[in-house]
Amino acid sequence: MTAVDDRPVLHTHTIRLSYADTDPAGILYYAAWFPKMEALQSEFLYLQGLRQDTLIERFGWWTVSRATQCDYLAAARLFDEVRIELRMGRIGTSSFRFVFRMVRIDDDVVVARAQNTVVTVSPDQASVPIPDDLHSHLLRWAGEE
Amino acid sequence: MTAVDDRPVLHTHTIRLSYADTDPAGILYYAAWFPKMEALQSEFLYLQGLRQDTLIERFGWWTVSRATQCDYLAAARLFDEVRIELRMGRIGTSSFRFVFRMVRIDDDVVVARAQNTVVTVSPDQASVPIPDDLHSHLLRWAGEE
Amino acid sequence: MTAVDDRPVLHTHTIRLSYADTDPAGILYYAAWFPKMEALQSEFLYLQGLRQDTLIERFGWWTVSRATQCDYLAAARLFDEVRIELRMGRIGTSSFRFVFRMVRIDDDVVVARAQNTVVTVSPDQASVPIPDDLHSHLLRWAGEE
Amino acid sequence: MTAVDDRPVLHTHTIRLSYADTDPAGILYYAAWFPKMEALQSEFLYLQGLRQDTLIERFGWWTVSRATQCDYLAAARLFDEVRIELRMGRIGTSSFRFVFRMVRIDDDVVVARAQNTVVTVSPDQASVPIPDDLHSHLLRWAGEE
Repeated sequence: MTAVDDRPVLHTHTIRLSYADTDPAGILYYAAWFPKMEALQSEFLYLQGLRQDTLIERFGWWTVSRATQCDYLAAARLFDEVRIELRMGRIGTSSFRFVFRMVRIDDDVVVARAQNTVVTVSPDQASVPIPDDLHSHLLRWAGEE
Repeated sequence: MTAVDDRPVLHTHTIRLSYADTDPAGILYYAAWFPKMEALQSEFLYLQGLRQDTLIERFGWWTVSRATQCDYLAAARLFDEVRIELRMGRIGTSSFRFVFRMVRIDDDVVVARAQNTVVTVSPDQASVPIPDDLHSHLLRWAGEE
Repeated sequence: MTAVDDRPVLHTHTIRLSYADTDPAGILYYAAWFPKMEALQSEFLYLQGLRQDTLIERFGWWTVSRATQCDYLAAARLFDEVRIELRMGRIGTSSFRFVFRMVRIDDDVVVARAQNTVVTVSPDQASVPIPDDLHSHLLRWAGEE
Repeated sequence: MTAVDDRPVLHTHTIRLSYADTDPAGILYYAAWFPKMEALQSEFLYLQGLRQDTLIERFGWWTVSRATQCDYLAAARLFDEVRIELRMGRIGTSSFRFVFRMVRIDDDVVVARAQNTVVTVSPDQASVPIPDDLHSHLLRWAGEE
């Protein structure tokens, strides 16, 4: 994933892992990253003027998650401070990916990597090719325009 | 609660409400504040050198939540930015309260108030009077020493 | 709360506490009950034909949570099985309460009690008196008709 | 994944999607499956006598999640009833997978598939080959002994 890691960071949140994020062993609860990924991705799109809940009305299409995955690379623990980085991943014809790196602040260790595959759909949820205006955004976010 | 509102703010987090925090009407999901309150309170105590999971070993007592409550005062919505403020509440002989104000950044409206009643307990979870060293901290946090 | 405890149980869920519900001490994470309370209350109303997201359109009013509170009475632990019971609480003129008891299956200990205060509101979120049709439901649920 | 789908179902939970599980469009919030997958997998292991938090002490090894992924195949909606099925997936030399199918009760549609890759580790979190006693369990769970 070197190529993706070289792409510009689009948005970050820095959070400190708390009790809700960790299990009785004091290690990250594996489901904890997903809501944080969603909050980062949604805020980024919101700040770009692309509120997901307005897309159908404004543009005639919207986006849904088709797949998500996360790899846990190092043990993250209670009270660790972690920076979540959002970057553009693969851009296809009817889907694209946001990729995430979770970097522990103290030692710069990448504790997790994740990605979220998004598809563009019509109002009735049929898959549609990525619209041109969105495609331009994606290329710009990938640093490729 | 005027008196409490005049007490010093001990710690704050500013968060933007995202999809996980809101229900299908786009209004705050009522359970959404509690994990955010916990994260704020736990980080404050951690930064004060009082990691909750080290208290028994270091001091021979620890703390558990005995009660919590939240009042929803104004509709908070998807993408609202909200500052959560932590203050000291009532200090009793074997319990004390942390109080929380959720203030919407845009218009300074208090959208919610909450409190968390904490009791000090022995290792086997029997209630004990607030230990002197903790009591000193509480008075200082209340701005009363 | 004896009177309320004598009221009929409207709905129950039995769940086993898992890692997401407990903190590093293996004790219930204090925010864990709220989403389970919501799921129980919402399913009850759904099964009664009162889907919350259809109320405005069908009846011209809907409901929002005004306050919630929870008292933690006994330590609930990882893998405890707990039955959450829903009962009708106080019925006022423009608000009513659902009350919840969390009973550990193994020893019948009430580990927590909680309540959720609901207000009836107009589409623009102004408080309105409880409509007659809803009021009849509430009395029936309280076992008082 | 036909082969895996033919393996025996090890454990199931049936849940009704509620407000916490859905986003403002009334569609499944993409992070919602993960805590439910964890609860199903953890309860299964608990009922098999393999409480994850006792493994180190009893056996000298324990397990951590190395990766997880979920594919969203059909739109799941507020109040849909869904059965989550747990099956054994691929068994390697130092890792194995649990696989999950989420089946909507009303129409038997598979709304999501997911998997959780687990590795066996020493107390200091170094990867170790799957111990013999666990390996026997895995083969039995896969229906292959």
